[in-house]
Amino acid sequence: MEKITARNNDKIKYACSLAASASKRRESGEFLLEGARLCSDAARSGVEIVRAFFTADAVSDYAQYVRAVEAVCGECFEISGEVARKLSDTGTPQGVFCVCGMKDHSPAPLKEGGRYLMLENVQDPSNLGAILRTAEALGIDAVIVSGGCDIYNPKALRAAMGSSLRVDIITPDDPVSFIGSNSGGGIHFLACVPSADALEIGNAVKDFSGGTTVCVLGNEGNGLTKETIDACDVRVTIPMRGRAESLNVSAAAAIAAWELVR
Amino acid sequence: MEKITARNNDKIKYACSLAASASKRRESGEFLLEGARLCSDAARSGVEIVRAFFTADAVSDYAQYVRAVEAVCGECFEISGEVARKLSDTGTPQGVFCVCGMKDHSPAPLKEGGRYLMLENVQDPSNLGAILRTAEALGIDAVIVSGGCDIYNPKALRAAMGSSLRVDIITPDDPVSFIGSNSGGGIHFLACVPSADALEIGNAVKDFSGGTTVCVLGNEGNGLTKETIDACDVRVTIPMRGRAESLNVSAAAAIAAWELVR
Repeated sequence: MEKITARNNDKIKYACSLAASASKRRESGEFLLEGARLCSDAARSGVEIVRAFFTADAVSDYAQYVRAVEAVCGECFEISGEVARKLSDTGTPQGVFCVCGMKDHSPAPLKEGGRYLMLENVQDPSNLGAILRTAEALGIDAVIVSGGCDIYNPKALRAAMGSSLRVDIITPDDPVSFIGSNSGGGIHFLACVPSADALEIGNAVKDFSGGTTVCVLGNEGNGLTKETIDACDVRVTIPMRGRAESLNVSAAAAIAAWELVR
Repeated sequence: MEKITARNNDKIKYACSLAASASKRRESGEFLLEGARLCSDAARSGVEIVRAFFTADAVSDYAQYVRAVEAVCGECFEISGEVARKLSDTGTPQGVFCVCGMKDHSPAPLKEGGRYLMLENVQDPSNLGAILRTAEALGIDAVIVSGGCDIYNPKALRAAMGSSLRVDIITPDDPVSFIGSNSGGGIHFLACVPSADALEIGNAVKDFSGGTTVCVLGNEGNGLTKETIDACDVRVTIPMRGRAESLNVSAAAAIAAWELVR
């Protein structure tokens, strides 16, 4: 395995830029994945692995995981601990990194009877990752992610614990046109809002249970935009009782996903 | 206002020790709260404020919040930016800190018809804080916290966004004796486990809807201990469909709390 010890090596600089910049990821269609388990999950889930970096310690400590990556990746490099620390998003890197190709996230027709979550401008990568993990665990058909933090942000990837690589994800350019071009024909969009006069979410999901249902959740601070609420079929809510101003968006998404699939 | 500029001032060293050490908090019955909004929430919620520290910038930038704290706290100090950075758990401190007295968390009788969450050994402060926030928002009667991260951990306090100071919290010494001394007489303990052969949580809550119900959730990696599961009345589960190994404990707690109150 060729060895890289220089922190300013071009391949390392490129990998760092993928971790640091959403626009770099968008331009290139590639992202950086970190962690022995996550990288081997990616290899096993059919994610395209363009290039891999391992420290010598990782090759022995995480031998099984490293082998799973090597099996599908032609271009593997050994890196020094110093280079690993430069690539890493954590304080204590495991020393396993992959440059991966993104899957296709372009809008596809929603499934008849499908159950979907849609997110508008969710900013916090930990929230985004947690929602993807919950969506996969509960069996949501796909998550539609519009604006906000991108799914390949290193913190979002870590919080999702591999779900980002397995659950179907659609990333439309604009939420209002996505809703407009999918509405009708038995597909219902439910705007989740913190308003006492909206329909209770469980009852609303039941009302629409014959068709395809999409629960739409908004930004942590500002909720959904007015335009997106107006584009949806109905406003739904999770009733609040305490002095807490609102549920965290990942808690609200867990409850919405649960109501969709129960 | 007396000014403190020395990072090794005794009052500052004491405040830092409260932020750093759970055993120091337990011994003293005091904790350190950070943030303009959180500290003024505490003042307004009747939390005992022993001592407050403000930077000069905070006194002008967060005047309203600082006044709310001053109104209930006799011992206020001005601190330098350097001292604020030493006290702070965040990279960009607002410069408002309070040493507070803990509320009484000793076990009290559970309310007839009450709805409770119980946590065993939840380790991650962000999970603990998120669960307290969700519990308050949904109107859970109290959260029973046994082992794991303590509710006054600085990261847990921040994630709870003030809910830790408002929602009732019980901290029993031992979960199994707590369950033993409260079981029966219409009080039901439901052990949440990731097992396909356990009762679906929504159906189980409905079965027990006449009495008092406590949903018990376990540690992030290991779930509930066998002893605690055995002490409960019944094992319940949130059915999983994807390849994700489990729901995050804060997502599971959101679904459990929702089933308890819906």
